[in-house]
Amino acid sequence: MHHFNYQNGELYCEQVPVAAIAEQVGTPFYLYSHATLTRHFHAFDQSFEGLDRLVCFSAKSNTSCAVMELFRGLGSGLDIVSGGELYRGLKAGFDPGRIVYSGVGKRAEEIDEALGAGIFMFNVESLDELTLIDQRAGAMGKKAPVAMRVNPDVDPKTHPYISTGMKKNKFGIDAASALQGYEMASAMANVAVKGIDCHIGSQITEVAPFRDALANLLELIAAIRAKGIGLEVLDLGGGLGITYNDETPPHPREYAAALAQALKAETLKLVLEPGRVLVGNAGILVAKVLYRKQGQTKSFVITDAAMNDLIRPTLYGAYHEIKPVIEAPEAITADVVGPICESGDFLAQDRRIADVRAGDLLAVMSAGAYGFVMASNYCSRLRPAEVMVKDDRFVVVRQRETYADLVDGESIPQF
Amino acid sequence: MHHFNYQNGELYCEQVPVAAIAEQVGTPFYLYSHATLTRHFHAFDQSFEGLDRLVCFSAKSNTSCAVMELFRGLGSGLDIVSGGELYRGLKAGFDPGRIVYSGVGKRAEEIDEALGAGIFMFNVESLDELTLIDQRAGAMGKKAPVAMRVNPDVDPKTHPYISTGMKKNKFGIDAASALQGYEMASAMANVAVKGIDCHIGSQITEVAPFRDALANLLELIAAIRAKGIGLEVLDLGGGLGITYNDETPPHPREYAAALAQALKAETLKLVLEPGRVLVGNAGILVAKVLYRKQGQTKSFVITDAAMNDLIRPTLYGAYHEIKPVIEAPEAITADVVGPICESGDFLAQDRRIADVRAGDLLAVMSAGAYGFVMASNYCSRLRPAEVMVKDDRFVVVRQRETYADLVDGESIPQF
Repeated sequence: MHHFNYQNGELYCEQVPVAAIAEQVGTPFYLYSHATLTRHFHAFDQSFEGLDRLVCFSAKSNTSCAVMELFRGLGSGLDIVSGGELYRGLKAGFDPGRIVYSGVGKRAEEIDEALGAGIFMFNVESLDELTLIDQRAGAMGKKAPVAMRVNPDVDPKTHPYISTGMKKNKFGIDAASALQGYEMASAMANVAVKGIDCHIGSQITEVAPFRDALANLLELIAAIRAKGIGLEVLDLGGGLGITYNDETPPHPREYAAALAQALKAETLKLVLEPGRVLVGNAGILVAKVLYRKQGQTKSFVITDAAMNDLIRPTLYGAYHEIKPVIEAPEAITADVVGPICESGDFLAQDRRIADVRAGDLLAVMSAGAYGFVMASNYCSRLRPAEVMVKDDRFVVVRQRETYADLVDGESIPQF
Repeated sequence: MHHFNYQNGELYCEQVPVAAIAEQVGTPFYLYSHATLTRHFHAFDQSFEGLDRLVCFSAKSNTSCAVMELFRGLGSGLDIVSGGELYRGLKAGFDPGRIVYSGVGKRAEEIDEALGAGIFMFNVESLDELTLIDQRAGAMGKKAPVAMRVNPDVDPKTHPYISTGMKKNKFGIDAASALQGYEMASAMANVAVKGIDCHIGSQITEVAPFRDALANLLELIAAIRAKGIGLEVLDLGGGLGITYNDETPPHPREYAAALAQALKAETLKLVLEPGRVLVGNAGILVAKVLYRKQGQTKSFVITDAAMNDLIRPTLYGAYHEIKPVIEAPEAITADVVGPICESGDFLAQDRRIADVRAGDLLAVMSAGAYGFVMASNYCSRLRPAEVMVKDDRFVVVRQRETYADLVDGESIPQF
């Protein structure tokens, strides 16, 4: 459910016509719906009612300060993967005590920053990282709260680039090493064992892989406890998928029910790290058609948005629905492409879409997750504006870049 | 040939130890060699000696102002694909009369900017674009110099994402439409027919596709002249490949000789748009090893550079050689990966490399083209510094980003 709907043949975000925003802001731009973000957070969080839980929005899916601040206001914690995300999270007002830090390559300075802020927990990816965290915490006179990230070797049945919990992936450690990690951690002077963590991937559309991962984790938890090591927190990561095209992911309620059933009488505090499921369908990318072009074997709709703005189609072969802002039936089959000088620059291929013309607006749907955060300046293109709508008002929450921004920090050397 | 070589077991860029730069600048960073850039430009340009030519560096491969300014000083023109590249080119001091503007999605404002600057030529991708250029030029009281970009339907035998001259690609127009375009253009009040253009792709490692494209173009040129329309310029685009691994691309001399032979007595001014062949092997990405990690079935070297810094491996499956900065034999087989939380974040897979440890430096070779220009802030990572070396000196030509840069232009809405 989202709040991008046609009213009298025109696409609206909540009560604002998308075309009216384009008129004032120019194109392309990302557009987020406040009501949709709010609804998604509540739907997720309330699905776990009755369980002691901390829902930590996964910042990497959408680091807009406006989006993060909104979730913070709704009671969310934050899942970060870098010092930059910590910086943004603090900027958005998050209580550091509700921030978990995941990621396979934490630098020493980033560990220091997180220790300095006083975060909730480090999800530790290797024994070497555990040792480094202990050292840094010691040097700062702190005690670092940690969980070991376990690789449960479960196939999440998603794109190989975003599956993260299989043996061949770089993430987490196997159960035996994790047990060793807990013994090491419990003997360390500057580390406090707090929990256990796993994360099996992203855009997962079945409950079974989560249930399997949890079952593996519960076995390990028993083994850790048998060593006399206590745990307070069980972080199950994120990864719940959304509908881009014809996927039928479980509702958060089904997901929560499956986890609750598996957890039985377990009283660990549950940490969850939803990203895409909260923001994916709460954002769109709005583009203008620049040219229609009939190639020798294909028809092309050339828009002012390109792979630098939204890389998911070319990087993951991802499907994004493309709707005309002025409602019209599907009438042509075309590749929807951007101005970038490579054939990999496409938003859709061989797609049935409306018979749009130069000047018409298109909405690339479900672009709220892994959209702007992956944007680049490739071909010296300016990264787009980001806009948020609430009810009948819209606000530019990130200005479109300018040419001057492109050369920020550059200089011509005088040798 | 490039100037990144071991001296006494340590990697140097010209006369500067790479480790000394890392010490001062931090990691990761891109590093360009002034002597290599200079050598590559001369080798390319001089291969065409005796022919009336304008070598236009293809900005999209590396838009560093420092790199562009260097080429300008050597007599290069510039091939641009956006208003942002025009801005950068003018910033780097290029004479607008030596700038050609390519690209399938030129916006009206960008056309105005190029007309205002007085560029050498527009490479026009469609009849609709031709009409738009005529309109904009008329409104500005200018005469727009144009070439039609022809799609010669030649298979360049490169990655599908970077082949651009086949029937199924969005680029150029077929010969029949081009002929129609020239008739239209010659009747337009605000357009001056100047030349003809094609570009068949990138990282092409054989001469034959270029020769085939040129042969197709020469036929079309004869047909255009038969209509009484004169041409002064033949733009053959770019696309010459480099050696990343075991490719054996032709030397620019062979490429030039093949073209010269096909051109015979033809006196058109030749425009060439080399990008990768000039900069690809003139730059490296320097990273530090953060962790070594033994997975259940694989070994991982985790570096502080990631797919946001260099996307070519994950986007194109591209090969980049990875060398230790302190010389050492290949001793392990590992995936070289970054800190980003997806399995698509790799620089190399199943690669034989040196037995490096946390703190060691690695050089990702041949990263001068489509490296920094495609970098993003994914996972709120700071885009790396860019450094240029000349002889025994180095200069930071683009500062590493800061956390504050990440939120530039952002605000939290007060609804």
